[in-house]
Amino acid sequence: MYITYRIISQMKIFIVHAHPEEKSFNAALTRHATNVLEASGNEVVISDLYAMKFDPVSDRRNFTFQQDSNYFKQQLEEKYATENDGFSADIKAEMEKLFWCDVLIFQFPLWWFGLPAILKGWVDRVFASGKIYGGGKWYDNGIFKEKKAMLSLTTGGKLPMYTEIGINGDIRSILYPINHGILHFVGFDVLPQFVVFGASQINDERRQAYLEEYAERLLNINDTHPIIYPVLADFDADFQLKS
Amino acid sequence: MYITYRIISQMKIFIVHAHPEEKSFNAALTRHATNVLEASGNEVVISDLYAMKFDPVSDRRNFTFQQDSNYFKQQLEEKYATENDGFSADIKAEMEKLFWCDVLIFQFPLWWFGLPAILKGWVDRVFASGKIYGGGKWYDNGIFKEKKAMLSLTTGGKLPMYTEIGINGDIRSILYPINHGILHFVGFDVLPQFVVFGASQINDERRQAYLEEYAERLLNINDTHPIIYPVLADFDADFQLKS
Repeated sequence: MYITYRIISQMKIFIVHAHPEEKSFNAALTRHATNVLEASGNEVVISDLYAMKFDPVSDRRNFTFQQDSNYFKQQLEEKYATENDGFSADIKAEMEKLFWCDVLIFQFPLWWFGLPAILKGWVDRVFASGKIYGGGKWYDNGIFKEKKAMLSLTTGGKLPMYTEIGINGDIRSILYPINHGILHFVGFDVLPQFVVFGASQINDERRQAYLEEYAERLLNINDTHPIIYPVLADFDADFQLKS
Repeated sequence: MYITYRIISQMKIFIVHAHPEEKSFNAALTRHATNVLEASGNEVVISDLYAMKFDPVSDRRNFTFQQDSNYFKQQLEEKYATENDGFSADIKAEMEKLFWCDVLIFQFPLWWFGLPAILKGWVDRVFASGKIYGGGKWYDNGIFKEKKAMLSLTTGGKLPMYTEIGINGDIRSILYPINHGILHFVGFDVLPQFVVFGASQINDERRQAYLEEYAERLLNINDTHPIIYPVLADFDADFQLKS
């Protein structure tokens, strides 16, 4: 007789949370995620960007010293900082969390069909050339290629507005620059986004259902298929799909 | 005998400029645009966001007083501020430029397939409900429906990477959330973007050619066809395209 045990693999989850109101439904989603994941033996680290007063403006402030103090080229300074431990303390702390985690989650309200600036600037500053990408390290050969990432977001408009025939456009198209251009670019396997549509218009019962659905999604991360993108081997020397 | 005069219509152009380095090619594009447009009798106003130290973080700081100091709902506060002249001074100044202009231009480097955070936050904070959209004022019925807007940007990667078969995806798809979701949402007729591909890799001759091409684009704004999007009348009560 054989007894098989389901292997419970503990995960390290890093949630980057970007909402200014701690009573918001975004905050409820992050709290619920934390409770559910920790109760299942996983570790959770949160960067609550508003609470941290994270500075999203990217420029010389990213570095503790400069390679070229006359002409600011951010990517060159990033490479120099990578080699010389020259990133500012706030950026270094976020980089450490990225390398620590198995799963990265962005929790945010969709503002103007994109990330709130405080979260966009977190990417602008933390995803630095040399340390996080570059030198052939991108897409399926990216630095974080063994890790998973997922967007969790709320929208103002209702679901029909975000379909292929909806007035705002398909939510998959709207999120493509983030899922593909930010998360997948640095190597993450990107899981389908979790979206609460019309968040300010739904009642408590519907909110509760969304919380339960989100918990279900999180507990099944390891069984969830990532979004499929072309791989580097599909492209020619000009980075166009081979015919 | 009839003599016809070509009517030179003067334009009021508002450039929102988002680059941290004043020696950058982005800065050269904004300077050249200003010179060329002013030499042709147009008026130009520039918001140089880095030079202004514009704060891109959107929250209670957007308002001089609060409707609800217990629970921050940004759209409700925006409507209240619209009715009670309650926007912070930095936001009011930008709103005035928006209402003043005939043409809005965003000049920026494409960072992580989107706007630099300082510019995304300019949108997050300035494009306020009540004042800039809402109550049926959106898309082709938007507040700025008599005005034009255009993105002018630089990319790190070369053009082939940003085609339909390119590794980064079609530049039109990447910019859709900005062109459609930000500019057209508030009513602007959106002109095709002006893109300098591989900006850091090209030589001075090529840069000069780009400057001249940009000047040509700007001087022909009134003869340029906007990007065509569906209109409100095409959608049903659920905001889906009528079949």
